[in-house]
Amino acid sequence: MSAVVYRRPPDAPPTPVPVRVGMVGAGQLAQMTHQAAIGLGVELHVLAASLDEPAVRAGARATVGSPASLEDLRALAASCTVLTFDHERVDPGHLRTLAAEGALLAPGAPAKLMAQDKLHARRALADAGFPVPPFAHAETVADIERFAARHGWPLIAKAPRGGYDGRGVWTVDGPAEGARILEAVPGGLLLEPRLWIERELAVLVARSSAGELAAYPVVETVQQDAMCREIIAPAPIDDAVATEARTMALAIAERIGAVGVLAVELFVTPDGLVLNELALRPHNSGHFTIEGAVTSQFEQHLRAILGWPLGPCELRAPAVATVNVIGQDDGGDPRLHMAWALTVPDVHVHLYDKQPAPGRKLGHVTAYGDVPREVRARAARAAALLEGRRPA
Amino acid sequence: MSAVVYRRPPDAPPTPVPVRVGMVGAGQLAQMTHQAAIGLGVELHVLAASLDEPAVRAGARATVGSPASLEDLRALAASCTVLTFDHERVDPGHLRTLAAEGALLAPGAPAKLMAQDKLHARRALADAGFPVPPFAHAETVADIERFAARHGWPLIAKAPRGGYDGRGVWTVDGPAEGARILEAVPGGLLLEPRLWIERELAVLVARSSAGELAAYPVVETVQQDAMCREIIAPAPIDDAVATEARTMALAIAERIGAVGVLAVELFVTPDGLVLNELALRPHNSGHFTIEGAVTSQFEQHLRAILGWPLGPCELRAPAVATVNVIGQDDGGDPRLHMAWALTVPDVHVHLYDKQPAPGRKLGHVTAYGDVPREVRARAARAAALLEGRRPA
Repeated sequence: MSAVVYRRPPDAPPTPVPVRVGMVGAGQLAQMTHQAAIGLGVELHVLAASLDEPAVRAGARATVGSPASLEDLRALAASCTVLTFDHERVDPGHLRTLAAEGALLAPGAPAKLMAQDKLHARRALADAGFPVPPFAHAETVADIERFAARHGWPLIAKAPRGGYDGRGVWTVDGPAEGARILEAVPGGLLLEPRLWIERELAVLVARSSAGELAAYPVVETVQQDAMCREIIAPAPIDDAVATEARTMALAIAERIGAVGVLAVELFVTPDGLVLNELALRPHNSGHFTIEGAVTSQFEQHLRAILGWPLGPCELRAPAVATVNVIGQDDGGDPRLHMAWALTVPDVHVHLYDKQPAPGRKLGHVTAYGDVPREVRARAARAAALLEGRRPA
Repeated sequence: MSAVVYRRPPDAPPTPVPVRVGMVGAGQLAQMTHQAAIGLGVELHVLAASLDEPAVRAGARATVGSPASLEDLRALAASCTVLTFDHERVDPGHLRTLAAEGALLAPGAPAKLMAQDKLHARRALADAGFPVPPFAHAETVADIERFAARHGWPLIAKAPRGGYDGRGVWTVDGPAEGARILEAVPGGLLLEPRLWIERELAVLVARSSAGELAAYPVVETVQQDAMCREIIAPAPIDDAVATEARTMALAIAERIGAVGVLAVELFVTPDGLVLNELALRPHNSGHFTIEGAVTSQFEQHLRAILGWPLGPCELRAPAVATVNVIGQDDGGDPRLHMAWALTVPDVHVHLYDKQPAPGRKLGHVTAYGDVPREVRARAARAAALLEGRRPA
C-alpha cells in the first residue's frame, strides 16, 4: 500500500511570479483548490456562474461567465499560465479550439474528453485492453433490444455526456421505457448490463505535465441515493486487488496522457475489477487526502499541472474516513450546527458555503485513527449533526 | 505530553449564518486564519493597511484602514460577530472604548494589554506569582544605573510597547548608551538583566469564550538575528519541565482571561523556567500545528473566539519542525523556487505572498516524521531552497 512516486529531476524553468492558474468552474473543488493555492503562492482565477459560488466566496479571483462560451474560456486562458477544471461540463470542441490557439490546458482536450463522453471513454479504454463492462451504443429501440437479448433486462442506460451524481443514468426494464429515454437523449445512449457489484472503489492518481506519476491508496466509496456518501481509506480489500487497481489507474493516466489528478472509479465484481468512470480533476473520493494523506489532492493537482514535483501519497493514519454532508429536506444550514458537530472529538469539517437544498452536497467531514469502524462512526456522527440530526 | 482538553457541553446558542469574524491586521496570520475559516463556514473580514496584504490577496473580505483609527475599528466591529487580532499594534484605549460600546473583543482589552505593554505584563505576572525575570521601569539614567548596580552590565532595555522581531530591544553597555535610548523611547524603558538562556520555549494554549482550555505540546524556538528561525516540536526537554511549562501557560490563560490562542514564550535558565513574552493571537511558534498537530492553531483560534468546542492538540507525528523562510539580501522571491523546494520529499510549504525584502518573513516550511534530526534537516533544506540557496 506504499505510494508510487517517480521523482522528477528539478529541471523546470523558473516559474513566473505569481503563477496564475485558471479553473473552469467555482464549486467546492475550486474552493478547496483555492485553499491549497494560497500557501503555494499560486493565484487561482475561476470562471464562475455567479459571485455566490463557493470558490469566489472563499476568495479566488473570479470572472463571471459560462463554460459554454468560447469567449469566456478564451479570456480566462489568456490571463493564466494554465487552464484546468473543477467539472466536466465544458464543450470539448471549445477546448480543442483553445488548444489550437496555444492555450495550455491541464488536462488536454483529448484526455479531458475521457471524462466528458462516457461512450468515447468506454471505446477508448476497451480498445486499450482495460476491463470495461460490456457496452453498446444505442440509437434505436432495436439496438436496445439486441443488447437486452444478450445481457437480459433490466439494463442500464446512460447519457454519454452531462450526467453526474446519478443524473443521466436510468435502469431500463423494457423496450417501451428504452424508447422514452432514447427520445429524451439526443445522440443515443450508452448501454450496460446491470452488474453484480460487490464493492465500489476509487483510485486517485496524479500525473504531472513533466510526466511524473503518483498514486494514492485505493479507497472504497459507499453510495446512497446514487450519490457518494462515504469514503473509506484504505479500501478493505486484498493487497493484490489494491495493487491491480493502482497499477490500472496509473496505466490509464499514462495511456490517456492525463495531467493533474485523475480519479478512476472501479467496481469489484465476481469476475474481478471492472472500470466505471474517470474524472480528470480533484474528486469527491479524494477529499480524505486533505488530512488523511501526506499531500492533499488539491495541492497535488496544482503541483501536477504546474510541472512541479509531486508529493507523497501515503496515508497519515491506519484508517481514514470521509462522510459527505448532504442537504436535508428541511433545507437546514450545516453552519447552524457547527458547535454541535465539533463536540465530536477529532473530526475535520469542511463546509462548502453553498445555499442548502435537499440532496445537495454541502460539505464533508474527515476523521482518522487506528480502528476503521471507530473512525467511520466518528465522521458519520459529526456529519449527521451538521445535517441537523441531533440526538434525542 | 498528551493534550489537555476540557470538554464543554454543547450548550451554545445557534450561531448566526454566516459567522463573520473581524480581524485587525491582514498579514500572514490573518492569511492562514482565512484558510482555516473557509472550511469552517466562517467569513473573515480584515482591517488591512492595503489591498496588497497577504490576507486580502488570499481572499479575506477587507476594509482598508488603520488600527490606529477608532472609526475604522468601530466599523469593522459593527459588521462582525467578534473582533480579533493578527498583531498587537492597536491602541489599548480604542479597545476599551469599543468594549464599552458593546463590541465583542477576543481577547478582551485587559487580556490583550498583556501582549501590548511589556511593562504592564511583567508587573501583572509578577504580582500573580509567575516567574518573571528581575525587571525595573527606568525613566532616568539614575534608574538604569541603580538596576545595573544590582544586576551588572550589560543589561537589556525594551520599549514597553510596539517592538517585535528584535525591534525595540537593546543591549545596554553603560549609562551613556542608556541615556541615548531613554531619549528615543517616550515613557521609559523596561529593564532586565542579561539572562543566561539555555533554551527558548513556547507554549501555545487556547482558551475559548466558554472557558474551555487546551494546550499544545511545548516547542523549542531557535532564534537567529533576533528573529525566530526554527520551531522544534516537541521541545527536547524533560517531561517535568514540559508539564511545568504547559501548566504555567494554562494558568496564565485562565488568570488573564485570554480568549483565543495564547502563545507563552519562556526561557530555560539555570534557575528554571522564566517567562518572557505573551502573544494573544496565533503565533509564529504555532505554525507547526497546521500539519503537525490534530487541530491547527488557526482553526483553534476561531473555535475559541466563537465559543465552539476546542480541538485536540496532540502532535500527528513523533517529530515536527518548522523553518521560517526569510527574505535574503538579493531580494529574491521564494515563489521562483517552488519547483526546487518541492523536490525535497515530504515538506509542506506556506508562502505568505509578501513583497520580498531582506530579513522579512516570507513563508515557512513544515516537515514531520520519526527522527527529529532528519525532520529538521528536511525542513531546513526546503527553506534554504526557497531562499534561493541552491546546491552548487
